[in-house]
Amino acid sequence: MAHLYPVLLCGGSGTRLWPLSRKSFPKQFVTLGEGETLFQAAARRLSGPDVRPPVIVTNADFRFIVTEQLAEAGIPAGAVLIEPSARNTAPAILAAVQYLAARDPQALLLVMPSDQVVPDSAAFSEAVRAGLPAAEAGRIVTFGIRPTRPETGYGWLELAHAPEGATPAPVPLRRFVEKPDAARAAALLADGHYLWNAGIFLFSVETALKAFEAHAPAMLAPVRQALEEAASDLDFLRLAPEPWQKAEDISIDYAIMERSDNLDVVPFGGDWSDLGDWASVMREGEADAANVVAHGPVTAIDCADSLLRSEAEGLELVGIGLKDMLVVAMPDAVLVADRSRSQEVKQAVTALKARGARQAEHFPRDHRPWGWFETLALGERFQVKRIVVHPGAALSLQSHYHRSEHWVVVSGTARVTIDGTPQLLTENQSVYIPLGAVHRMENPGKVPMVLIEVQTGTYLGEDDIIRYEDVYARGQGAKG
Amino acid sequence: MAHLYPVLLCGGSGTRLWPLSRKSFPKQFVTLGEGETLFQAAARRLSGPDVRPPVIVTNADFRFIVTEQLAEAGIPAGAVLIEPSARNTAPAILAAVQYLAARDPQALLLVMPSDQVVPDSAAFSEAVRAGLPAAEAGRIVTFGIRPTRPETGYGWLELAHAPEGATPAPVPLRRFVEKPDAARAAALLADGHYLWNAGIFLFSVETALKAFEAHAPAMLAPVRQALEEAASDLDFLRLAPEPWQKAEDISIDYAIMERSDNLDVVPFGGDWSDLGDWASVMREGEADAANVVAHGPVTAIDCADSLLRSEAEGLELVGIGLKDMLVVAMPDAVLVADRSRSQEVKQAVTALKARGARQAEHFPRDHRPWGWFETLALGERFQVKRIVVHPGAALSLQSHYHRSEHWVVVSGTARVTIDGTPQLLTENQSVYIPLGAVHRMENPGKVPMVLIEVQTGTYLGEDDIIRYEDVYARGQGAKG
Repeated sequence: MAHLYPVLLCGGSGTRLWPLSRKSFPKQFVTLGEGETLFQAAARRLSGPDVRPPVIVTNADFRFIVTEQLAEAGIPAGAVLIEPSARNTAPAILAAVQYLAARDPQALLLVMPSDQVVPDSAAFSEAVRAGLPAAEAGRIVTFGIRPTRPETGYGWLELAHAPEGATPAPVPLRRFVEKPDAARAAALLADGHYLWNAGIFLFSVETALKAFEAHAPAMLAPVRQALEEAASDLDFLRLAPEPWQKAEDISIDYAIMERSDNLDVVPFGGDWSDLGDWASVMREGEADAANVVAHGPVTAIDCADSLLRSEAEGLELVGIGLKDMLVVAMPDAVLVADRSRSQEVKQAVTALKARGARQAEHFPRDHRPWGWFETLALGERFQVKRIVVHPGAALSLQSHYHRSEHWVVVSGTARVTIDGTPQLLTENQSVYIPLGAVHRMENPGKVPMVLIEVQTGTYLGEDDIIRYEDVYARGQGAKG
Repeated sequence: MAHLYPVLLCGGSGTRLWPLSRKSFPKQFVTLGEGETLFQAAARRLSGPDVRPPVIVTNADFRFIVTEQLAEAGIPAGAVLIEPSARNTAPAILAAVQYLAARDPQALLLVMPSDQVVPDSAAFSEAVRAGLPAAEAGRIVTFGIRPTRPETGYGWLELAHAPEGATPAPVPLRRFVEKPDAARAAALLADGHYLWNAGIFLFSVETALKAFEAHAPAMLAPVRQALEEAASDLDFLRLAPEPWQKAEDISIDYAIMERSDNLDVVPFGGDWSDLGDWASVMREGEADAANVVAHGPVTAIDCADSLLRSEAEGLELVGIGLKDMLVVAMPDAVLVADRSRSQEVKQAVTALKARGARQAEHFPRDHRPWGWFETLALGERFQVKRIVVHPGAALSLQSHYHRSEHWVVVSGTARVTIDGTPQLLTENQSVYIPLGAVHRMENPGKVPMVLIEVQTGTYLGEDDIIRYEDVYARGQGAKG
C-alpha cells in the first residue's frame, strides 16, 4: 500500500478575491459557498486507507487559522511547517519533501494548492490513483484539467498524444504552455492535445530529491539546514529564518518542472476551478435563468450575467438593471466591477493599501492564537470590542498605561485574574480592570467564551500593552 | 414691513434615495453633502428682518427629528404642527394658513418642500421679495426654475409671456404642464415660455382662505376643527385626528392651484434641484474629469459618468470599469443601479419591504425623543447597544421581564435610578440592572451622555418593557 501524503501549500494572499479574501485571512480560509472552507475541502479531498495526514506549509500569520480549521473539520495534521518568509513554491515543496524523506522514505507526495475548487472528490481521488504506478516508477505526475473554454487565465499542458478513453491514465507531457492569448487559447482548445495546468503534482521523495539535485542543487543545503535548525513551537515546526533566506525565491515550475523530462499528465475531466478572480467565482456559482449568481440577502431587479454577493446576513444588496457586473458587498468594503475587469481587483487593493486603508489587508475581525476580537464601536475616548476566546485558551498576562476596561461575559465562563487574584465569571457577570492593573483572561471551559469589553481612556491603540507572560511567546507592544 | 412666514412641509419619505433616505428618517433630515441637512437649509433659506420663525408641518414620527435639527442649527420654530395622518399637501397647507390667520392676519406664507437644494440663498430671497408686492395684492405667487435641460421628471409652468430681463419679476401663469415625455420636454425647453415647477408658493392668509373657500370649501371646517381641538404636547401642536380624517386627501396643485386664475410666476435662474433620485444627486455633485461624482472613501479605477458614494467613514467602496452606474454603499445596505434606472429604486424598496427586510424603512440607529440608540452586536442570548441621551433628557421609568442589563457610561454623566435609589455615574463607571428591577436613565448634564448597554437574557426584543412613567407620554410595550 502506498504512503500517500497530501502536501497543502497555503501561503497565498488571494488578493483578486478582495474584499472577501484579504492578506490577513485569504480566500483558502474563507467560506465561499456553504459549509467548508477551500482549505478544509483541500485537506479532506483525498481519502482512502493509503492516505496519511496532510503536511501543511504555511506562514506564521496563518498558523493558528490552519490548526483551528483543521480541528473544526476533524482532520489531524501530519505536520505544519512555518515558512519564516515567502520564498515561492520550490523551497516550500522541498521543505515538505525533506521533512518526509527523513521520516518515511516510501512517502509519495501529492502537492496541491489549498484554494482550488474540486467538487467531485471521488473522481479526483480516482485520477490521483491512476497516477500512482507512474509516480512509484519514478515519474513526476501532474494533473491536467480537460478544458471547457478557451481560457487565457491559466497555463496549459501539451501532451505527447491525445488522452485515450474516459478512464484517467498518464500521458507523457511534451511541454508547459504559458498563459495564451485569446486566439491561441481557442486553437489549444480545438486541438485536443492540451489540458489546463492545475498546479498539482504527485511524486515520490526519491524522485523529488533527484529532481532538485539535478535542477536546483543549491537549494538543498539551505532548506535542509532550515529544517534541522527548526524550532518546535506548539503544533508547529518553525523553519530557521537564516538558512531559509538563502534558498532561491522561485516557483516549482521554473525550478524543477520545466527542466524535467520525466513528467506524465493524468487528465481530469471533473469540474475544477482555481477561483482566481470574481469572474471565476461567478462561473462556479448557481445561476438563475438570467445568469445572475446571487449569494446572501440580494434583490436583483432586471439584472443579467452578473454576480451579486452580500457577505453578511444584515447587509441588503440591491441591483437594478445590471449587466455583466460583479458586486461583492461587506459591511466595511464594497467592490463593484465590470465583469471583464476582474483581474484589476489586485490593482485596486494596491491603491487602497497606498491610501492606508485597513480594509486592503485586514478584516474587522482580528484572529489571534487564543480566538478573535472585533471592534464594535470606536468613539473619542472609548472603544467597545467583542472578544471570543477558544476553550482552554488564555490571553497574555498584561497591563495598560492609558486605558481601563470593563468586561461583561455574555457566553461561557471566564477566569479573570487581576493583580494576582483569580475569579470565575459566567454569563451576565462583569468585572472592572483599573488602569495599570496586571490582568489575564482565560477560558477554562469547554465552549467558546464571549465577552464584551468596554475600554475608556485617552489612548486605545492595540500597542498600549505590557506583557508579563504569554503562552504564545509574543513580545512587548505586539498586538493582542 | 411684510410678515413673511416660511412654511415647511416635511412629511415626505424620500424612498427613491434609498438606502441613504428611509421612511423612518427620510432625505430631508439627511446630510447629503457637507454640513447642514436639506431641512435645516430650507428652514434657514429665507432671511431678513421681515422673516418670521418658520412653521413646520410634519408627522408624529419626525417630530423629535424636526426639533432636534432646528435646535442644532440654532433656528427657533414658529410652530410645529403634527399631522395625525398623511392627507397630502392641501390639508397640511390649509392648517398652516388657518393657524397663522388666527395669530397674524397680515401673514404672508412662503410654502416650500423641505427636501430641495437651492445653493444660492441670497438669489432665492431676492426672487421671493420680487413676488411680495403681487402676493400682497392678492395674487398667488409661484416660482419657476429656468430650465437647463429637457427634464421629464418635473412638471412645467407655461407663462403668459417670456420673462423679460434678468431681474426676477412676476409673469402671469397661463397653465400647469404635467411631466412631459422627452420630445415634448425638448420642445418646452426650446420655446422659452416654460419653466420648471418648483412647488413653492407665496400668498397672504387672506388670498389663501379665499382660494380654499372658492375651490375646496369642504376642507375648511374639518381642518379648522382639527386645529381648534389640537393638543399641545411639549413644543408640538398635535392636530385632532378625527376631524383631520375628514379633510380630503389631495395635493395643493389639484385642490387649489390648477383651479385658480390669479397665479403669477417669478422666474428663478439659480441652481435648484428636488433631488428626486440618485441621478439628480449625481447631477448636483462635484464631478471629476471623467464625470465621476465620489463621496466618502471611494476608489474609482477607470470609471466614467457614475456616482460612487460611501456613506460611512469605515466603508471602502471600490469601482472598476464602471460606466453610467449609481452606487450607494452603507454598512447595512448597498444599492447598485444603472444610471437610467434610478426611478426604480422605489420598486426595490417595495420588494425589500415585502421580504420583511428592516433596511427597507429603518436605519441601524433608532431615533427617540430622548436621543438615539443602535445595536452594535446581537448574539444568541446577548445584545450590545450604544445609547446616546440628549442633555436634560430622560428615558422612561421601566422594567423588563426577560433581560438584565449592564450599563457602562463612556461619555458625559448619567443619573441612574434603580428601585427608587438614584446615583450619578460618570465616564468609566458602570452599573448592573437586575432582571425585574424598576429603573430609569437620565442625562442631567450639559453634554450628550453616551452609554454602552450589554443586555443578557432569553428574549431581547424592544417590546419587553413595562413603563411606569414617561415624560414623552408613550404606552406599555411601545418601543424605547
